Amino acid sequence: MQIDYKQILEKIYKEIKPELKKGEVASYIPALAKEKKEQFAMSITLADGSNYSVGDSEKRFSIQSISKVFTFAQALNLYQDNIFKRVGVEPSGNPFNSLVQLEYENGKPRNPFINAGALVITDMLVSYYKDEYKTLEVILNFVREISSNKEITFDPIIAKSEMEHGFRNLALANLMKSFNNFENDVKNVVFTYFKHCAIMMNTKELSRAMLFLAFGGEDPITNKRFLTKLQAKRVNAVMLTCGHYDASGEFAYHVGLPGKSGVGGGIVAVVPNKLSIAVFSPGLNEFGNSHAGTIALEKFTTYTGLSIF
Amino acid sequence: MQIDYKQILEKIYKEIKPELKKGEVASYIPALAKEKKEQFAMSITLADGSNYSVGDSEKRFSIQSISKVFTFAQALNLYQDNIFKRVGVEPSGNPFNSLVQLEYENGKPRNPFINAGALVITDMLVSYYKDEYKTLEVILNFVREISSNKEITFDPIIAKSEMEHGFRNLALANLMKSFNNFENDVKNVVFTYFKHCAIMMNTKELSRAMLFLAFGGEDPITNKRFLTKLQAKRVNAVMLTCGHYDASGEFAYHVGLPGKSGVGGGIVAVVPNKLSIAVFSPGLNEFGNSHAGTIALEKFTTYTGLSIF
Amino acid sequence: MQIDYKQILEKIYKEIKPELKKGEVASYIPALAKEKKEQFAMSITLADGSNYSVGDSEKRFSIQSISKVFTFAQALNLYQDNIFKRVGVEPSGNPFNSLVQLEYENGKPRNPFINAGALVITDMLVSYYKDEYKTLEVILNFVREISSNKEITFDPIIAKSEMEHGFRNLALANLMKSFNNFENDVKNVVFTYFKHCAIMMNTKELSRAMLFLAFGGEDPITNKRFLTKLQAKRVNAVMLTCGHYDASGEFAYHVGLPGKSGVGGGIVAVVPNKLSIAVFSPGLNEFGNSHAGTIALEKFTTYTGLSIF
Amino acid sequence: MQIDYKQILEKIYKEIKPELKKGEVASYIPALAKEKKEQFAMSITLADGSNYSVGDSEKRFSIQSISKVFTFAQALNLYQDNIFKRVGVEPSGNPFNSLVQLEYENGKPRNPFINAGALVITDMLVSYYKDEYKTLEVILNFVREISSNKEITFDPIIAKSEMEHGFRNLALANLMKSFNNFENDVKNVVFTYFKHCAIMMNTKELSRAMLFLAFGGEDPITNKRFLTKLQAKRVNAVMLTCGHYDASGEFAYHVGLPGKSGVGGGIVAVVPNKLSIAVFSPGLNEFGNSHAGTIALEKFTTYTGLSIF
Repeated sequence: MQIDYKQILEKIYKEIKPELKKGEVASYIPALAKEKKEQFAMSITLADGSNYSVGDSEKRFSIQSISKVFTFAQALNLYQDNIFKRVGVEPSGNPFNSLVQLEYENGKPRNPFINAGALVITDMLVSYYKDEYKTLEVILNFVREISSNKEITFDPIIAKSEMEHGFRNLALANLMKSFNNFENDVKNVVFTYFKHCAIMMNTKELSRAMLFLAFGGEDPITNKRFLTKLQAKRVNAVMLTCGHYDASGEFAYHVGLPGKSGVGGGIVAVVPNKLSIAVFSPGLNEFGNSHAGTIALEKFTTYTGLSIF
Repeated sequence: MQIDYKQILEKIYKEIKPELKKGEVASYIPALAKEKKEQFAMSITLADGSNYSVGDSEKRFSIQSISKVFTFAQALNLYQDNIFKRVGVEPSGNPFNSLVQLEYENGKPRNPFINAGALVITDMLVSYYKDEYKTLEVILNFVREISSNKEITFDPIIAKSEMEHGFRNLALANLMKSFNNFENDVKNVVFTYFKHCAIMMNTKELSRAMLFLAFGGEDPITNKRFLTKLQAKRVNAVMLTCGHYDASGEFAYHVGLPGKSGVGGGIVAVVPNKLSIAVFSPGLNEFGNSHAGTIALEKFTTYTGLSIF
Repeated sequence: MQIDYKQILEKIYKEIKPELKKGEVASYIPALAKEKKEQFAMSITLADGSNYSVGDSEKRFSIQSISKVFTFAQALNLYQDNIFKRVGVEPSGNPFNSLVQLEYENGKPRNPFINAGALVITDMLVSYYKDEYKTLEVILNFVREISSNKEITFDPIIAKSEMEHGFRNLALANLMKSFNNFENDVKNVVFTYFKHCAIMMNTKELSRAMLFLAFGGEDPITNKRFLTKLQAKRVNAVMLTCGHYDASGEFAYHVGLPGKSGVGGGIVAVVPNKLSIAVFSPGLNEFGNSHAGTIALEKFTTYTGLSIF
Repeated sequence: MQIDYKQILEKIYKEIKPELKKGEVASYIPALAKEKKEQFAMSITLADGSNYSVGDSEKRFSIQSISKVFTFAQALNLYQDNIFKRVGVEPSGNPFNSLVQLEYENGKPRNPFINAGALVITDMLVSYYKDEYKTLEVILNFVREISSNKEITFDPIIAKSEMEHGFRNLALANLMKSFNNFENDVKNVVFTYFKHCAIMMNTKELSRAMLFLAFGGEDPITNKRFLTKLQAKRVNAVMLTCGHYDASGEFAYHVGLPGKSGVGGGIVAVVPNKLSIAVFSPGLNEFGNSHAGTIALEKFTTYTGLSIF
C-alpha cells in the first residue's frame, strides 16, 4: 500500500486549525513568550531525502529539549553503556524538573530526557572535550552534520535569558554535585546546556536531522553512520518511554511512535525504517508538550496506520 | 530473510543455563516459594498457529500480573475510553505497590498494570457483571477463548494464600474507596483479583493467548476479534511503557518489545504483526521480574533482529 | 500575682464572638456536620477542683482525637517504653492521615496522635485486654475515672457513621498489618477506635479529665495516680510537638501549651502544675483544628502570661 | 528546694564518661573531622551571672546550627511576623537538608532551623543590611553582645571548607530562588551563612549567650532587651518543636527543654525563668545531634526536676 503523504499532511493541516487557539505558549522567558500561538508546521523526511511539509516549515524556533536527543546520542557514542553509571533509562513519573526523585535516588537522574539527566549528559560531554566552548562547538557540528545544514546555530539571547531564570537547573546541578554526580563547574555546564537548548531549527531541518534514528543509526542519504544499530534502537526506546515528561505514556498510547518534545513547541518522532517527522506549534498542553503538535501526530499515525505497536 | 526460530530458541536455551541460578523465587506466600529456581521454558506462536518451544513448556505456573493484560483488555472492550476516568496510562516511576503516588494523585492509579490499577480494573468488571463469581467466570472464559484451551483455570490454594497475606492490596483498595474510586465490596474484589492472578498456564498456552495482541486484536487462527485494531495497539503501548513496574524503561531499552511480567516468573511479549512469546523462569531480579526470562527475551530480539524500534 | 480567671474567661468570651462565624464544621459524616458553627465553650479546672467556665460548657460533643491522649496514657502505663517499638514520638510534618510517611517508614507511625499511631495504640490495648469490647469498657472506665464522672459514654450513631466512611483508616490499618505492625482483626480495632473517638463530653468534663496531666500524673483532688511523673511529662511533650497535626508548630508558637485538638471542635491543654483547660467551637481552620478554640487559647496565654516557654 | 548545680554537673560528668566513645564526629569537612571524639563540656549560667561548668568548658568549637538561633532572633526583631511570609514554624518531619518538602511547599521552608529556613533568614538579613559583609559584622556583634564577650569570631578556614563542599546548600538556595523566595546573590548569602555557622564558642560563652532567651528576651545581667517577651517565648517554642531536626520529638520527650543542636557537637537549651545551658561533645548520634550531649541534658532534667512539662 502506497501512502500519499502529501495528501495526509494537507488533511491534517486543515483539520488542526481549531486546535491552534488552544494551549499556552511557554512564558517563563520573554524570548519564548513572544512566539505567536497560532503557528503550525509539519514535515516528514523519507529515506531517499524526499520531504513533505505543510505550514510554516521554514520558520525556525528554539528546539529546547529536542536537543537532548542529540546530546544523548553523542554521549552514548562516546561512553557506550558506561553512560548508565550516571543516568538511568526509567520514566520519571513526575514533572520534568522535580528534585524529589533525584534526592531519593541519590543524585542519579532517572533518564537522559528529564532536565537533571540532560545536565549530566552535558557534563559528561564537557568532561570528554575538556572545555565547554569546544563542547558546544562539537554539539553544533553534530546537529549540522545530521541535518546536512551548516547554517544551524543557537540563539545567544534565548540562552542568556534562560540562564537568568535558570535557578532550578542550577539547583539540580548543585544537588547532583553534592552526590558526586557532576564533574565540572556548575554554571559553565548549565550555560552550555541552555545554549544547546537554544539551537534554532525549522521542521524541515528537524525531520531531516532525525533521519539517522529512523534508519538504525545510519543516515540513509549520506550513508554516514552515527550510532550502531543497537544504539539507535535504544535511543528510540528511551524516546518512547521518557520523551514527553509525565505524558510519555499518553503519547505512546495515542501516537505510538518514539518521539521527543520541547517547550519551544516542537516535537520530533520516527517511524523506524520508514521516515522521520517534525511538528511545530507553540501552544503547550498542561504537560508542557505542543498541544496541536501532539494531536497532529496522533492524526498522522491514525491516517497512515503507521505505529510501532 | 527467513528466521530459524527453532535454532534460535535452542541457542538461547543453551546459553541461559548459567543464569538460572540467579535471582530469587517470590517467597511472600508458601505456594509460590516452593517453585524450584532452575526451571526455564520459552515458547513462541506464529500467525498460522505454529509453535516453537524449549524447556518445560508444559509446566503450568501462576501467571500472576500477566492476568492484568487480560482484564485490561476486557475492561477496554467494555468501557472504551471511559476506563481512563478511573485509571491512567503513565509509568509509575515507583515500586509496583506504592501507596505514595496513589495518595498524591487522589486515588487514581497511574496505569492498569500496577496493583492499584489492576484492582480498579477488576472492580470495574465486577460493577459490569454485578457479581464477583460471574466476573471471575467471564475472565476465565476469556482466557480460555484467547488460548483456545478450555482446561485453563486458577489455583484456589494460591488465591487463598495470597488473600491471607493481602493486607497491602486491601490497603490500596480501601484508600481508593476513600477517594470514591472503588465501587464494590473491598474484600470481594480483592479476592477476585487474587483468583485471576492465580490462573495457571504454561508458556505454550500463554504465547498462544497473546496472539490476538500481536495481530491487531484479532486472533489470526480463529479469526475472532477481541479488540479493535486501535485498542490492541494501545494495550501494547501500555505494556511497553508500564509492563514491568519500575524496570519498564530497562525492558524497553534492552528487549524493545511490548511485554508483561508476573512474580510467578512468567513474561509475555509480542512482536506486532509477527508473533507472540512467553517465557518462564521463577528466579526474580531486584525489580520482581524473571531474571533469566528477561535475558532470554533480550537474546531473542538480538538474534532475530525483531524489535519495534 | 493572683490571676482573675473568671474575668479573663469572660473577656475572651466577649472577644471571641466575631470568630465564631469563621471556619468550617467537619462534614465528612452527617452526625458531625449537623453541629451548629456558632457554638463556644471554655472551661478551666484548678488543683483544688474549682472550675471556671464560659459559654455552653454543659453541651457535650464528640471528643474525637482528644481521646487519643487518654488511650496513649493508658498504653504508656501498660507497656512503658515498649510502646515505642511500634510508634514514634516525632512530629509528622504531613496531613494527619497521610499514608506516604507510613509507607516510607515501614509501617511505624511517627507518633501516637496521627491516625495511624492512634490505631496502633488501640491495637495494643486490644492485644492486652484480648477482646475489643473489654478494651472499650476499660477505655470508658478510665475516662470516667479521670473525670470523676460515671455517666460518660460514647455515641454509637457517630461511631457507626464513622465506620461507614472509614476507608482511609482501614487502609492505614491494613498497610500497617502488611508491615507486621498490627496484631488484631483490622475491622474490630478500627471500630473500637471510632467508638472511643465518639466519646461525648463537655468542656467542664474535659478540663477536669486533663487535670492529672497538669499535675504530674496524679489527680490532685482524688490523689489517685494514673501515670508516673516522668510519664505525665512525656505525654505533655508529645502533645506539644504532635498534638495538632501539621499545625503543631503554629500552636506551640502562638499558644505555648501542651494540647490536643479533635475534629469535633474540642481542644484540651494543660499549664503544668497550675491548671487544665478545655475549649469547644466546631468551626475548624484549614488544619482541622477549632478556629475559635485556638484563638481563645492564644488569648488565654496572652492575658494570663501562662506559657511553658 | 535549692538545687546544688555544682554537684549535679559533677555527677553527670562522671556518669557520661562511657558515652563519650559512642557516636561519630561529623566528617564531611576536614576541619570538623579532626575534632577528637572523647571531649565533653557542660556549663550553666544563672540569672545573676553565676556559672557552673564541668569538662573542657574553655575549649571553643564550631557552633554550626546553633548560630541559627541567633540569626532567627535578629530577623524576628527586624521583621516581626513578616518573617513568616518566607519561612514557617512547623517541624519538618524529614532529614534536615531535604529538598523534597521544600519543593512540595513551593520554596517556603518549614522552619528557620532547617538549612533552607536558615538560608532564607540569612538572605533576609542581607536584604536588610544591603551587604553581606555588613550582615556578618552585625551577626558577630550581636553574638558578642549577648555573650558579653568581644573576642568571639568565626573560623575562616572552616567557613571556606564548608563552602567547598556546600553544593547541597547551593541547591537549596537556588531552588528557593526559582520560587522567588531568595533575594540576594546565592553564593554570597550561602558563604555568609557558612561564616556564621563557623562562629567559635565554648560552653561557658554559649550558656551565657542564651541567657536572654531564658529570661523573656532581656539579659538579666546587663538588663539589655533584645527581644520582646512574646518574641523570646516564640523562639523557645520553635526550638522545642524544630530544634533537633528529625529528632525534635525525641528531644522534647526525653529532655523536655527548648534547645538547639549543631553538628559541631554543641547543644544549647534554656529553662525559662531559671537558667541557660550549653553542652559539647563532638560524637553525633544517627540524627546529627551530640550523643553524649543529649544524654547529659536528659540527666540534667531528671536530676534537677527542671522541665517545661
